[in-house]
Amino acid sequence: MLSQRALDAFRSTLGPDRVFDDTPTLALYAHDETPHHVEPDAVLFPASHDHVLALARIAFEHHIALTPRGAGSGNVGGALPSRGSVVVSFECMRRVLELDPHNRFIVVESGVVTEDIDRIARSVGLFYPPDPGSSAYCRIGGNLAMNAAGPHAVKYGVTRDFVLGLRAVTGSGQEIRTGCRTTTGVTGYDLTRLLVGSEGTLALITEATLKLLPAPEAIASLRVCYASNRAALDAVSRVMHQAVVPCALEFMDHRSIEAIRPTGAANDLPPGTRALLMVEADGVTQDLPRQIAALEQALNGEGLLEMRSAFAQEDIKRLWAARKSLSLAVKRIAPLKMNEDVVVPVSRLADFVDFIDQTAHTHQLAVVSFGHAGNGNLHINFMVHPEDKDEMTRAHIALEALMQQVLELGGTLSGEHGIGTEKRRFISMEIDPDTLALMRSIKHLFDPHQLLNPGKIFPD
Amino acid sequence: MLSQRALDAFRSTLGPDRVFDDTPTLALYAHDETPHHVEPDAVLFPASHDHVLALARIAFEHHIALTPRGAGSGNVGGALPSRGSVVVSFECMRRVLELDPHNRFIVVESGVVTEDIDRIARSVGLFYPPDPGSSAYCRIGGNLAMNAAGPHAVKYGVTRDFVLGLRAVTGSGQEIRTGCRTTTGVTGYDLTRLLVGSEGTLALITEATLKLLPAPEAIASLRVCYASNRAALDAVSRVMHQAVVPCALEFMDHRSIEAIRPTGAANDLPPGTRALLMVEADGVTQDLPRQIAALEQALNGEGLLEMRSAFAQEDIKRLWAARKSLSLAVKRIAPLKMNEDVVVPVSRLADFVDFIDQTAHTHQLAVVSFGHAGNGNLHINFMVHPEDKDEMTRAHIALEALMQQVLELGGTLSGEHGIGTEKRRFISMEIDPDTLALMRSIKHLFDPHQLLNPGKIFPD
Repeated sequence: MLSQRALDAFRSTLGPDRVFDDTPTLALYAHDETPHHVEPDAVLFPASHDHVLALARIAFEHHIALTPRGAGSGNVGGALPSRGSVVVSFECMRRVLELDPHNRFIVVESGVVTEDIDRIARSVGLFYPPDPGSSAYCRIGGNLAMNAAGPHAVKYGVTRDFVLGLRAVTGSGQEIRTGCRTTTGVTGYDLTRLLVGSEGTLALITEATLKLLPAPEAIASLRVCYASNRAALDAVSRVMHQAVVPCALEFMDHRSIEAIRPTGAANDLPPGTRALLMVEADGVTQDLPRQIAALEQALNGEGLLEMRSAFAQEDIKRLWAARKSLSLAVKRIAPLKMNEDVVVPVSRLADFVDFIDQTAHTHQLAVVSFGHAGNGNLHINFMVHPEDKDEMTRAHIALEALMQQVLELGGTLSGEHGIGTEKRRFISMEIDPDTLALMRSIKHLFDPHQLLNPGKIFPD
Repeated sequence: MLSQRALDAFRSTLGPDRVFDDTPTLALYAHDETPHHVEPDAVLFPASHDHVLALARIAFEHHIALTPRGAGSGNVGGALPSRGSVVVSFECMRRVLELDPHNRFIVVESGVVTEDIDRIARSVGLFYPPDPGSSAYCRIGGNLAMNAAGPHAVKYGVTRDFVLGLRAVTGSGQEIRTGCRTTTGVTGYDLTRLLVGSEGTLALITEATLKLLPAPEAIASLRVCYASNRAALDAVSRVMHQAVVPCALEFMDHRSIEAIRPTGAANDLPPGTRALLMVEADGVTQDLPRQIAALEQALNGEGLLEMRSAFAQEDIKRLWAARKSLSLAVKRIAPLKMNEDVVVPVSRLADFVDFIDQTAHTHQLAVVSFGHAGNGNLHINFMVHPEDKDEMTRAHIALEALMQQVLELGGTLSGEHGIGTEKRRFISMEIDPDTLALMRSIKHLFDPHQLLNPGKIFPD
């Protein structure tokens, strides 16, 4: 329970309009994209690095747990408050501190919306490639915490690859600066990438220096329909085995297609379509026909039903309609979506999706699979009814089998969503005890009182 | 002094033919590319991960310091033995453990020669981009320790960007596995990149899983001559401000050109050439003329004397002759080369090289500057005579001023060579006390007895 003294300290330091403990606010900040609901004791809205430094020092002094939060759009409980914690919302830290087109970087506060970074970069001919599905509203701080990816990762890499340096505050209220502003640099340990993906458990990231790239001149898209999951995923493997790297290579399984049928977005798919690939290429306009031709050649194979290409913006948008309608459509299948973000080597995708089908059949579960197939990163959605105890039990058994299979195929538990509260019981399946113990010791170094985002990543 | 008991333990564990303490061997392993000479107490040649694990446990038990070593081609004393230490040479660990062209990765032991990785990758249509100047003989373990870069970094990134996972042994003799085998993954803390660039001070890296990319079909080169350093470096800034990213963008200053004159490699440069850029583009054959045209446009400006392009392998080789002759030619200027590898933002390169000229003039020093200008990464070589005490004093004064200037311009102390013994006295100029203390604490976690590569990175 947060003491009045601590609350007063927060109020006098941040200002009364940046500290809330009223019932509606606590309720609003009690959840993220998981179904859980844990009310924090208060919600803080710092406006600057100095605010974060001050609040971390108060928290350290009073032993108050802090739950950092961007937009709360995470899928694994990363921004879910732990009981008795105070949420640190970065929503008010939205300043762009510097944009340097000559040296291709941007310095932003943690609360800047990811898409805004890309938009600002494009205004000077550059772009910011990482594009998680939530980029229209998620905050860069959350992306940094989870090492977010998105469709572009297949060509450009993940958030980690675009972070040059960070400014942050540790759990003991120390401010640190990591990395540099240049594209090469090896001075001291790489704390930058240690913080990226650490899910707010090591430090509160306040500012980030991000690398930008020259914006591609144009894009072109392919929508490719197949008679089976295996036909589509074999095509993915062929695409990733030739020289033209697409800037997106997205997969939808047969249940994804069934899910969008009621929306009308599947109406123009040829009969018998049981899997879909969305493929995108980018570059200079004159080179796109060559790229698309090479991709078409790799995509062509057994089970191909139809291949449509688009070069004009309007046509591209139309082609992507099926994929874009998916997220909302999936939610209509059942009240609860258990969204598992796993990765297997690209060449094992077909076997893996076979395994999922079999598992879904054995345990009588509705499972929808789609995702960033070019990275081997799939989102496996178990669509369940929380009040159906038997179904929930079956789902949890299937989930454990799924994780086991991912690791047997040489994959990893999470591609871009992170571990949070939802996967921490599985982490020992992937990371050996000595390595995990080392991670816990690092946590202890940065956060000796265990105040930063407790209950995440590590099993109790 | 190494005890007989410890020596016996190494011999009985690794085998007598893998443990040497004879005078010629100790002399051979007493140095790297720096002028220093410190004989180790013994040299070990492990043949496998298990050997490294075993020797680390013996070292831990007997409190023996270990100096890990690849080819000893580093410039900052990273592989220089500390007094009383035992060198762990990875030269015998040269196995390629796995090559997976479908999933675009290769698993190698730490002693594999960097160029061999690229060669093997190219045999299946892929390539390994990082290409430090020493790639024909340096070992990947050294590249990982120093986060090596090279000319390709301007387009493709540095070693860090190509490491998916590692196998390593900590200073307390624990084996750890980090990362994964897939191109996305965020399960636990990023220990992979914490180890990359840690200069062998945290763990002995035994095996690495490296990401490979589709090999470009063709390359084309430009050799561009300018009337002044500033003209060349302004051109670099223009190149990095347009959309075509070259795969190499190398700079040679007027003293570099003077240095190669005796070799004849400057004979075909136009009169008045006082700076040179080597620019390379890669991609599909049909797209290269477009890239070269765009680069030519950016390279064209005040002070341009001549621009030559080459598309055929033989012609490209001829164009690069001046640049390739440089390393050896520079060594003829004076007996000792103090090679400073620093980085400044690309847009500040011209100012920075002006500063270097001024400093050289003020302190009457021969300074040769060249390097990977596209990353802002220059190698500033102070050519000195160690027996000339006055010159050495002036060089050290100039060096400190140089580091100060690098940081004032928003740069970093090292781009690709690391800190080692040579730059550790400067590290506090760049990294604040709290951040540096945190790095030291991490060191203590991985290596509680301070056995791994003592005397590197951190000031005493």
